[in-house]
Amino acid sequence: MNKETTTQHISHRFDEELAAAKGQLFEMGGIVETQVSNAIQALLELDSKLAKSVVKKDQIINSMEISIDEDCALILARRQPAASDLRLVLTIIKTTTDLERVGDEANKMAKQAINLAEEGMSPKGHIEIRHIGQRVTKMLRDSLDCLVRQDIQLALKVAQEDKAVDLEYGTAIRELVTYMMEDPRSISRVMNIMWSLRALERIGDHARNIAEHVIYLVQGDDVRHMGLEKMAEKVQQS
Amino acid sequence: MNKETTTQHISHRFDEELAAAKGQLFEMGGIVETQVSNAIQALLELDSKLAKSVVKKDQIINSMEISIDEDCALILARRQPAASDLRLVLTIIKTTTDLERVGDEANKMAKQAINLAEEGMSPKGHIEIRHIGQRVTKMLRDSLDCLVRQDIQLALKVAQEDKAVDLEYGTAIRELVTYMMEDPRSISRVMNIMWSLRALERIGDHARNIAEHVIYLVQGDDVRHMGLEKMAEKVQQS
Repeated sequence: MNKETTTQHISHRFDEELAAAKGQLFEMGGIVETQVSNAIQALLELDSKLAKSVVKKDQIINSMEISIDEDCALILARRQPAASDLRLVLTIIKTTTDLERVGDEANKMAKQAINLAEEGMSPKGHIEIRHIGQRVTKMLRDSLDCLVRQDIQLALKVAQEDKAVDLEYGTAIRELVTYMMEDPRSISRVMNIMWSLRALERIGDHARNIAEHVIYLVQGDDVRHMGLEKMAEKVQQS
Repeated sequence: MNKETTTQHISHRFDEELAAAKGQLFEMGGIVETQVSNAIQALLELDSKLAKSVVKKDQIINSMEISIDEDCALILARRQPAASDLRLVLTIIKTTTDLERVGDEANKMAKQAINLAEEGMSPKGHIEIRHIGQRVTKMLRDSLDCLVRQDIQLALKVAQEDKAVDLEYGTAIRELVTYMMEDPRSISRVMNIMWSLRALERIGDHARNIAEHVIYLVQGDDVRHMGLEKMAEKVQQS
């Protein structure tokens, strides 16, 4: 084998390894999405069986995080990627962390669903869970889509949507606090809804983080903590 | 300059760059520690001036995260480290993420302190904030110490302490829910304490994450999601 063939061979293996890591990440993303949808459904329908399956499945996500991280460390050690390949590996590492934490939040929601299935539905908060749940599920899907398609316009939309969700979350929490004061007997059940809303709000934050990683991947600009207006400028410039 | 001198020169520059990134990380850790202590103090003393200074200082932590990440990406691209040097760079990248999120939690606590300074102290929860606050502050300090000293025994202790804090947190939350039912007028103020306790519990999780990164750095074992017993075995084996 001459030198050029060897180089091509190595480069081909490298591309394969990168593609495999990306593939695993998207698979992890798909599982995490399902976990979030199932946790929301379990909460809305007080389905403790579904909730328990979410809790059980969290281990799979944890193992995937470790496995993807290991693959990325190997790629860095063996292939020593530079420029956009390096950014891709770093993006994969950061995105798995966010996805694993989204999985944690789904797990927490599922536990609240199990509590509520025992205590009975909260008299208030059903609509808020469904509504914010839908928005956040879409954000998460969009954040993974913009990673697949390297679509920074969509990434910007995810970040903008996060701000809207935060505002809606704040309103929902204030309403629930008011409700608890009027009906103290419901406090324990309403608290389950509050913790679940908090989990949804956190999932929105992670979706935004993933979207920000995508902008870094595509443009090389670190747009974290930048504020939405500046971020929009950066994305428009490209 | 002959070849050997050039290699030594490059290796020396590399060590310097790594040391600089580590130094920045420890500086960030120190600032984050102070932010957490100040947020707890602001909560306990209803000191809204101190709380506002915590909120303001969060930006510094955010900038440090971006700057350290950038330095690490440059080190990876230029120096292509392997083995323990690579693990160190990956550990720094992961630890900055955790530290930034600890900063976020301190920021959230400071905002609750500002609310409480307006509404008046919660009739319940002062002791819990002080007690869990002390434990978590120590965990955070220990997690940074074990990184400085590469002390995996201390890292294991931090992980064990996290479990104890989680249990204590659960008890505190249940007591506060009971209290709110008995005194619904206090709900809004007690909620500020609950969110603050949640922030402390999350800080404990991040301290544990940092401790786990240290075990990976020193031993090369990824001990996340492993359970404390297995983790202890791994650490003892070394």
